[in-house]
Amino acid sequence: MSRTPGRMASPSEPASYTWEATDEAIAERYVLAVETVARFDTNTAPSAPPIVARILAEGRFDVPLSEYPPGDYARLVTAAAARYGVGPDELLVGAGADEILDLVVKAFLPPGGTAVVPVPTYAMFAVLSDQRPAHVVRVPRRPAAVGFGIDPAAVRAAAASADLVWLCSPNNPTGLPEAPGVIDDLLETLAADSDRAGRPAPAVVIDEAYAEFAGASNLDLRTAYPRLVLVRTMSKAYAIAGLRVGFAVARPDVVAAIAPYRPPGSVSVASVAVATRLLEDADFVTESVARTTVERARLTEGLRVAGWSVQPSSTNFLLVAFQSPAQAASTAEGLLRRGLVPRTFGSDHSLAHCLRLTVRSVEQDDRLIEAARELAR
Amino acid sequence: MSRTPGRMASPSEPASYTWEATDEAIAERYVLAVETVARFDTNTAPSAPPIVARILAEGRFDVPLSEYPPGDYARLVTAAAARYGVGPDELLVGAGADEILDLVVKAFLPPGGTAVVPVPTYAMFAVLSDQRPAHVVRVPRRPAAVGFGIDPAAVRAAAASADLVWLCSPNNPTGLPEAPGVIDDLLETLAADSDRAGRPAPAVVIDEAYAEFAGASNLDLRTAYPRLVLVRTMSKAYAIAGLRVGFAVARPDVVAAIAPYRPPGSVSVASVAVATRLLEDADFVTESVARTTVERARLTEGLRVAGWSVQPSSTNFLLVAFQSPAQAASTAEGLLRRGLVPRTFGSDHSLAHCLRLTVRSVEQDDRLIEAARELAR
Repeated sequence: MSRTPGRMASPSEPASYTWEATDEAIAERYVLAVETVARFDTNTAPSAPPIVARILAEGRFDVPLSEYPPGDYARLVTAAAARYGVGPDELLVGAGADEILDLVVKAFLPPGGTAVVPVPTYAMFAVLSDQRPAHVVRVPRRPAAVGFGIDPAAVRAAAASADLVWLCSPNNPTGLPEAPGVIDDLLETLAADSDRAGRPAPAVVIDEAYAEFAGASNLDLRTAYPRLVLVRTMSKAYAIAGLRVGFAVARPDVVAAIAPYRPPGSVSVASVAVATRLLEDADFVTESVARTTVERARLTEGLRVAGWSVQPSSTNFLLVAFQSPAQAASTAEGLLRRGLVPRTFGSDHSLAHCLRLTVRSVEQDDRLIEAARELAR
Repeated sequence: MSRTPGRMASPSEPASYTWEATDEAIAERYVLAVETVARFDTNTAPSAPPIVARILAEGRFDVPLSEYPPGDYARLVTAAAARYGVGPDELLVGAGADEILDLVVKAFLPPGGTAVVPVPTYAMFAVLSDQRPAHVVRVPRRPAAVGFGIDPAAVRAAAASADLVWLCSPNNPTGLPEAPGVIDDLLETLAADSDRAGRPAPAVVIDEAYAEFAGASNLDLRTAYPRLVLVRTMSKAYAIAGLRVGFAVARPDVVAAIAPYRPPGSVSVASVAVATRLLEDADFVTESVARTTVERARLTEGLRVAGWSVQPSSTNFLLVAFQSPAQAASTAEGLLRRGLVPRTFGSDHSLAHCLRLTVRSVEQDDRLIEAARELAR
């Protein structure tokens, strides 16, 4: 097993999220009209559904906007539990999946503890663990040729002395879910190892931000392992990243262990109303996923015809591999000059030779395909 | 100095916020129509200003609701900095003041450290400190007769080995700001003590959630002490508790020390738009405070005529002292039977003989005055 040394942040130099440049900053740097900037870097939908504007305009919320959101988010919890097919006591509301990740750290990763992060993956797993402060053990994922799946033996070895294991399926930024059975088997092994060692099983998070696009989830595993937290979000298939709504799904006792760390109220009253209505709409997410799937195929084909090496994806984004980090960087620069913003990876990142590109609207994706053709010339 | 022993939470029994019962829960328990329930317990405004609904209906946001809020909240920061008379680099945005408090703990209270909490005060100071986990040293405030001010000598003694000191002015739930000069002198003393001891000065938070009502603030002190964080909110005088917007105001180097702990985006795009507009409106908060001040005087007089012992207040709430905890409890029950929800204090709380009541609308306050008259008979 290869791993980078675990390290703990010093109070003066915590790990931190790196924010995307704003539309305005990009427009200024590349001398563009701000409205021509198109975001292929944040894995968000090209637009929110029209019903969102109508709900905000109607203004019929659970409580007036002058009041705190209801402490139990009862209607939202009911709608989300029905949508995910779980009990209301198996669900906890957060201000986006990011708040859920923070609450999980508070509940299950003690200061000075250890978290296992199969990399590359969503940056916040390591940031939040490092900030706790805790040791972060990075375990490389398997090669692109086998879909960047986790290395179960390596994760198992690292988890033997860990408090928390971060999984993400489908994985961001690589785009595919774990192969069937891999997570089931890993959980079984971790539980058995802990039993044998006479220690509590490490908590396991499965971030399923992109699960709707993959058409499969691991929600059913929630009862199969002592401390398993599934994370869902309304920022991707539900197209309301700007309203900040996410969920933890877990056994009632696991939800109860997280709940004390929930702040008095972090999700806005307006967000609660919109999220509730979208979850109650039986067809909305199906249509959103269907549209994304069709458009993903079209964008993939367009970029491949232009000569780009597009990796397979079960999400709303594509990982594109170039010959070298230098070629990825020059391609990124070529896109940015056209107002098309890709997700890049630092020069010390294992995906430094790649760009990540969100599936957006037909119009925006056509601009991307055209740019790829021009840059390939 | 009297203090309760510091204690650290065990992972299985963290301190936790106690949520208010929802309107629905109260209506069910007391067999009332839910629309008759009036909240005197959360120190919120009776309604949001009409412009809030118009802004949401217009739907002109910084970015579409399908996108994450801008990482720098640039327009909101500009508006808030202008409103508070500070530089944009002296301000940090949070999902309500509660998120700011959490970020301050992450930045300045190391696990196993010590926090000083002059009590009674806002419950979240101790909850967040305890959850870190850290030791909480509770220092009793001075008696009601002297306005529940802090005991500077006792706070100074406790702060000698502390990482963080929590102040709140005007203080919740007691209603008055610290006397002029008290905080200035305390900060000077803490800085001098730390210098002499050759240790870093403890971070100091001044929660100013109710500062607008008092017509005075300590924002000018931000440069007078090494690590001072002032906390402001839009949940009280700005009347948008449901939209969850708050701020830290501090020297640029202190803001920079907190910033790495800020999550990728916690304030909704809709909240950002509303908050920005309210902060840009020169007259809105002045009118809000003026209305509250007039109504506070009217409510105070009405309750006093009914025989209640209303403490002086510079906020949007009143602390009312009864003869005994039993009388406070029976009064609370009498109010609840009428759908009027007071803030009560547990039987082991130093204010167990008190109720806290928010200044609301004329109509709701009239119901409270009428109830006070009936209960006094």
